[in-house]
Amino acid sequence: MRHLLAPENRPIYPVNPSSSEIMGLTSYASILDIPEPVDMAAIVVRAELVPAALRECVQKKVNSALIISGGFRETGEEGKKREEEIIEIAREGGIRFIGPNTMGHLDTSSGFNTTSFIEHIPSGSVGLIAQSGNMGTRIIQNAHRYGMGFSKFVCCGNEASIYLEDYLEFYAQDPETKVIMLYIEGLRDARRFFKIARKITPKKPVVALKSGGTKGSARASRSHVGALTGSDDVYTAAFKQTGVIRVSDDEGLCEVTTALLNQPLPRGKKVGILTMGGGLGVVAAESCENEGLEITELEQKTLEKLNALLPDRWSHGNPVDLVGSNVAHSPEIISTLWILLEDKNLDALISNVWLGRINRDPRLGRIFGNTDTSGETDEEYTRKFFQQVGQYDIPLMMIGGYPQTASDLDAYILFHKEGFLIYPQPQRAARVLRHLNWYRQYLETISGD
Amino acid sequence: MRHLLAPENRPIYPVNPSSSEIMGLTSYASILDIPEPVDMAAIVVRAELVPAALRECVQKKVNSALIISGGFRETGEEGKKREEEIIEIAREGGIRFIGPNTMGHLDTSSGFNTTSFIEHIPSGSVGLIAQSGNMGTRIIQNAHRYGMGFSKFVCCGNEASIYLEDYLEFYAQDPETKVIMLYIEGLRDARRFFKIARKITPKKPVVALKSGGTKGSARASRSHVGALTGSDDVYTAAFKQTGVIRVSDDEGLCEVTTALLNQPLPRGKKVGILTMGGGLGVVAAESCENEGLEITELEQKTLEKLNALLPDRWSHGNPVDLVGSNVAHSPEIISTLWILLEDKNLDALISNVWLGRINRDPRLGRIFGNTDTSGETDEEYTRKFFQQVGQYDIPLMMIGGYPQTASDLDAYILFHKEGFLIYPQPQRAARVLRHLNWYRQYLETISGD
Repeated sequence: MRHLLAPENRPIYPVNPSSSEIMGLTSYASILDIPEPVDMAAIVVRAELVPAALRECVQKKVNSALIISGGFRETGEEGKKREEEIIEIAREGGIRFIGPNTMGHLDTSSGFNTTSFIEHIPSGSVGLIAQSGNMGTRIIQNAHRYGMGFSKFVCCGNEASIYLEDYLEFYAQDPETKVIMLYIEGLRDARRFFKIARKITPKKPVVALKSGGTKGSARASRSHVGALTGSDDVYTAAFKQTGVIRVSDDEGLCEVTTALLNQPLPRGKKVGILTMGGGLGVVAAESCENEGLEITELEQKTLEKLNALLPDRWSHGNPVDLVGSNVAHSPEIISTLWILLEDKNLDALISNVWLGRINRDPRLGRIFGNTDTSGETDEEYTRKFFQQVGQYDIPLMMIGGYPQTASDLDAYILFHKEGFLIYPQPQRAARVLRHLNWYRQYLETISGD
Repeated sequence: MRHLLAPENRPIYPVNPSSSEIMGLTSYASILDIPEPVDMAAIVVRAELVPAALRECVQKKVNSALIISGGFRETGEEGKKREEEIIEIAREGGIRFIGPNTMGHLDTSSGFNTTSFIEHIPSGSVGLIAQSGNMGTRIIQNAHRYGMGFSKFVCCGNEASIYLEDYLEFYAQDPETKVIMLYIEGLRDARRFFKIARKITPKKPVVALKSGGTKGSARASRSHVGALTGSDDVYTAAFKQTGVIRVSDDEGLCEVTTALLNQPLPRGKKVGILTMGGGLGVVAAESCENEGLEITELEQKTLEKLNALLPDRWSHGNPVDLVGSNVAHSPEIISTLWILLEDKNLDALISNVWLGRINRDPRLGRIFGNTDTSGETDEEYTRKFFQQVGQYDIPLMMIGGYPQTASDLDAYILFHKEGFLIYPQPQRAARVLRHLNWYRQYLETISGD
């Protein structure tokens, strides 16, 4: 309600039989008492009262509704009958509705927000459809950790009237949505889903987290949104055939989406690794190889450039290990990054060597190449750095530790705003590269059809 | 050097031919010029000068040395010969040494710290042995994220004289070390390692991250510490047979170690899930089942207690889904936690419902049961909460989002100091439970021998 009121150019009519004013607005005993036409009704009453409320919406000729109330299919037989009743009312009355048992939806460009819990949602290019309000909320609450912004969000609820497939179709043609993010427990119309997905993925990436594939989780899902989760193998195969990138947790969902929005797709599987210490190089190399990527040879040209630049103790190969801290804080370091980004043997670069501002934040400041930064704000400096990274056409995956202080957190968020994540583990960066690479291969396969 | 000076009761003698004073201390041209006996020598000179320096240590009758200098086996044939030379000098002279190519070691109880980069290391019960300085540093730098403290740390370097196996044997009998944490690339004497490990693990858990098992990572490891990494399958089998808990990344290393220090081992595989929203319950259930754990039925008694306590819309089973936010911020919530911790069907509990202080931090404040907290500091309140959790003998794994603000970070760290992690993903909590459960089973098997 509070969020609905935010953009003041949209008239809101509270309906409540027991009060005449709500948050400064005239309240009506019934939707039928509202003097103006109504576009959409948001229904938040006890389950038993929903059918009557929906009937009044039909009478009022409301186009669409949002039924937040729970107590339907997800609660058993009685709820299931009630759900069938409202489906029937809506069908006869020509209304379609979100939910029931939904946490709402939002659209950042118009500021229309029917959720009760999400504030300050950053606008952007990600369209999220979630078959769970709290998974949707988790993703949105973690968004600024990934520098992600949203075009639209919807919590599907029980999908009695509008199905996930409908939202997907709608997002597909939405110009503000560049990547579609899905949290799925079970599809109502899997055949239709995959038919739509196949059409979308060549133009707009679709990234999906599917859960509910095991016995106990399927049971949990039934009592949650009444979803029929189905065999996990079938989903895996269908995602694969239709170009839907399937991730295994909500972190992966956000990481892959962020990379798709901000990084070029890798041309192939050959990865370069740049590290300030051997162990991390070993772990990064192993992570890549475990994900089916290759630790390739560097170009002869690259070896020569690095030999000319670095003290002799560097590893003389890939992973490029700068060996310890003596070369840290020196302008050579950042040059190493540019030299590797130029190497034609590499399809992607994983690096724990990246921009940092010496003297500003000692933790981020270990690397640094810009000796003339006077007068620049951190934002300007960061943007310039990433603009330069953007000149090269391979993805750069940066590895760091976890932010441990408020200033770490600020610096990370600054980077993330530019679309560059600091992955806390090389394993994660490798995993994202595997997904990007799979998607590139998928696109090549279908364009070759 | 700076850190060495910290505890002032230990005499330090700088040795440097070109200066007579270093950091306020008399400096000597050679170790032979020092008037007192010397216990340990730390050598940080160019590789070519190390043999001569070590010979002087022998002459001075120094017991042990630390060779930080790189430029030995890890750099190729010439370095290998140089390493053989210093091994020979040490053997003949009766000296043993850490390294070469090490980042140093430290002991928190005596404050002896030969590393150049780690400051303010929290003291505690974790003994860390790392075949990589930068992986060791990563782990230590992330320690406060896990509320972990260390008894001892050593970066093995090339292990020319003292092997990882020696450190392991030493940690085994160290009363300050309760859990041993290993970062391994390759073992010098695998047979001996596993013989020692088999003796330690029944009394003291050993958690290992082993990398270098793929082609490119093995190559990287050779040029890093000159390690022979060996077949990964052999390691897997040997870890399994000797009770060493093998994790797959440094996060897992810290998480499992923290759980071993602070939580009881689960009695079995049956997990309860307590959640404020259905989706997270589905994801948590799937995560557990994917890790070989079971989402079990609750005791009849538990169902009755929850029915009496909660509004009817709760899920009436495991996962226990409280369904949305209406019951949040109510004292019932925290009772739910105690009811489940009492359930004899459960061997472990995963929960995104946990202590928080309403009115203090809105993000942590969603749950709360202590209505009489006036006058208590956050620390006292948190400690009391976890003391109560500790009355039950099953592990409690708490799930939350990522800390996003400085105050989140503070609250998380407060919890972590009490030994309770907030896992950012249910997947991670499930993974830790799998490891704890595996270890419990191992202990049962050997005690049945």
